[in-house]
Amino acid sequence: MEKHPKRRRGEKFVFRAQAAEPGTAPIAQGYLARIAENNVAPTTEVFAPFRFEGTDVGNISVVFAKQLQRFPRVFVVDFPSAITMNPALQSPEERSDAAAGVLKELASEGVVTGWRDELYPVLKGFGSPPLLCVERAAAQLFGITAYGVHVNGYVTLPNGEKELWVARRSSTKPTWPGLLDHIVAGGQPHGISPTANVAKECSEEANIPQDLAETAVAVGAVSYKGVTEGNLKGDVLFCYDLHLPLDFTPENMDGEVDEFMRLPLSEVAELIQTTQDFKPNVNLVIIDFLVRHGFIRPEEPDYLQIVASLRSGVCA
Amino acid sequence: MEKHPKRRRGEKFVFRAQAAEPGTAPIAQGYLARIAENNVAPTTEVFAPFRFEGTDVGNISVVFAKQLQRFPRVFVVDFPSAITMNPALQSPEERSDAAAGVLKELASEGVVTGWRDELYPVLKGFGSPPLLCVERAAAQLFGITAYGVHVNGYVTLPNGEKELWVARRSSTKPTWPGLLDHIVAGGQPHGISPTANVAKECSEEANIPQDLAETAVAVGAVSYKGVTEGNLKGDVLFCYDLHLPLDFTPENMDGEVDEFMRLPLSEVAELIQTTQDFKPNVNLVIIDFLVRHGFIRPEEPDYLQIVASLRSGVCA
Repeated sequence: MEKHPKRRRGEKFVFRAQAAEPGTAPIAQGYLARIAENNVAPTTEVFAPFRFEGTDVGNISVVFAKQLQRFPRVFVVDFPSAITMNPALQSPEERSDAAAGVLKELASEGVVTGWRDELYPVLKGFGSPPLLCVERAAAQLFGITAYGVHVNGYVTLPNGEKELWVARRSSTKPTWPGLLDHIVAGGQPHGISPTANVAKECSEEANIPQDLAETAVAVGAVSYKGVTEGNLKGDVLFCYDLHLPLDFTPENMDGEVDEFMRLPLSEVAELIQTTQDFKPNVNLVIIDFLVRHGFIRPEEPDYLQIVASLRSGVCA
Repeated sequence: MEKHPKRRRGEKFVFRAQAAEPGTAPIAQGYLARIAENNVAPTTEVFAPFRFEGTDVGNISVVFAKQLQRFPRVFVVDFPSAITMNPALQSPEERSDAAAGVLKELASEGVVTGWRDELYPVLKGFGSPPLLCVERAAAQLFGITAYGVHVNGYVTLPNGEKELWVARRSSTKPTWPGLLDHIVAGGQPHGISPTANVAKECSEEANIPQDLAETAVAVGAVSYKGVTEGNLKGDVLFCYDLHLPLDFTPENMDGEVDEFMRLPLSEVAELIQTTQDFKPNVNLVIIDFLVRHGFIRPEEPDYLQIVASLRSGVCA
């Protein structure tokens, strides 16, 4: 582990932004550009809400809706008005069992891929009782809100300036390999509190001792909603700040991180504004951090738009 | 000045909430109730947007629209679609002069009251050039977004707990007399940065020395939009945190504060949840403070709704 990566970060983005390689479009600059990349509105795709008792709990594409329409005893498809579950299925257990039957059949046909044998709750809002649970591999097809926890691990230098610990995701990870990430971040499983989840992830991902992890402060949430691989999905990320001692060095325990580095906020800000080096949703949480710590100030152009767009998705 | 008010704060709200005086309805409880009181949707009133080049910059009631309709060389009233200014008025100066003529006439008729001889900019967004300026007394009739700065002045006790400095507004103030307020808060005048405004207000309102005031950290913004006295208006408040030394005592310089007191966050939180003792919009800024400092946590019921509703108004 070294404090700064070997290659000066500044060089890379200047190259990318001003003299892109042939066939590589220069990326848009600025905080709003990074936020917008998490909130890509549907263009050609058409979606209908997945609805329970008047509350929209997901978004289903016309492609997947046509599949669900084959199972009228389970799903009532009234596209594009709404997709609901057959009211004959009255309990969460009945609904989950019925949905599992449908999804297993669709998996056998190759419509649902990447089966994980892991259940994912469909909720009216965070903390409310599950309406049903669906196989995680199908969650994105229903466009269900996913929840996560992200930890800004930072230090304060003797001169008062702050530096952020940043992880580089393993080059072998199936999602976003090699991109920059928080020191600790993870999905929010059902049945455990976000704060308990943070403590668990702190240990697994960065070997942060329990007593230190417990000093992480919940500081709010960001949200976004956009189209990814033909699905329309919103995420809510619970944000935490963890003020780390200057002599602390994270150590990855689960093989999902290639390196950790500690970067001055000015460098982090420049990377966000001028590169796509961070995993897309990580940008939102760090921008929120930069706002809350007075690094992005009201005198910044677009300050209020930046602040407002950090919760562009449903926040419930 | 004494650290805590003489009357235990707890007694008052218990009385109010559980055994209201005859004819006094008990107030709604909880953070969301206080936020909602700043976001009262129109019921009987009807409004049209005040619009410039496709951007809504205000909200005008049918009552005031009928007055403006008398001046077709200045205002084009197409209620309830939109109210615009006559395109013949091309520069901000021409528009301001024309609007001033209308408003002076309406003031002479008693339609516009409380003339202040103070101009208020109409903006597409904070920091953008004024489209025109209108007399401040008429700003609410146009439903123009107002901007303010609010400072959470707080201390950290030796045991790590935080206390918030709170002001009680003078009983002779025309607006919200006697209610609780921030140690420093004020309107955001045009032509001065929010951060410079904070420094100025810190000196005037609480005698905070310049070098201490300059340590105030910009931490974001809250917004709300609702009907007040028949007008539909949104405000945006820039929020600052000011970590004060334990031995600092504020001193009011402009006669607008009757007393300052330092309250534990638990007491502040209880006052917000169970009373209307704080000036309505102050609740939003303090709730945002409680979220950012981990006092209101993700495990709190309605956490995400609380977080999301702190920016219920236009934030631009």
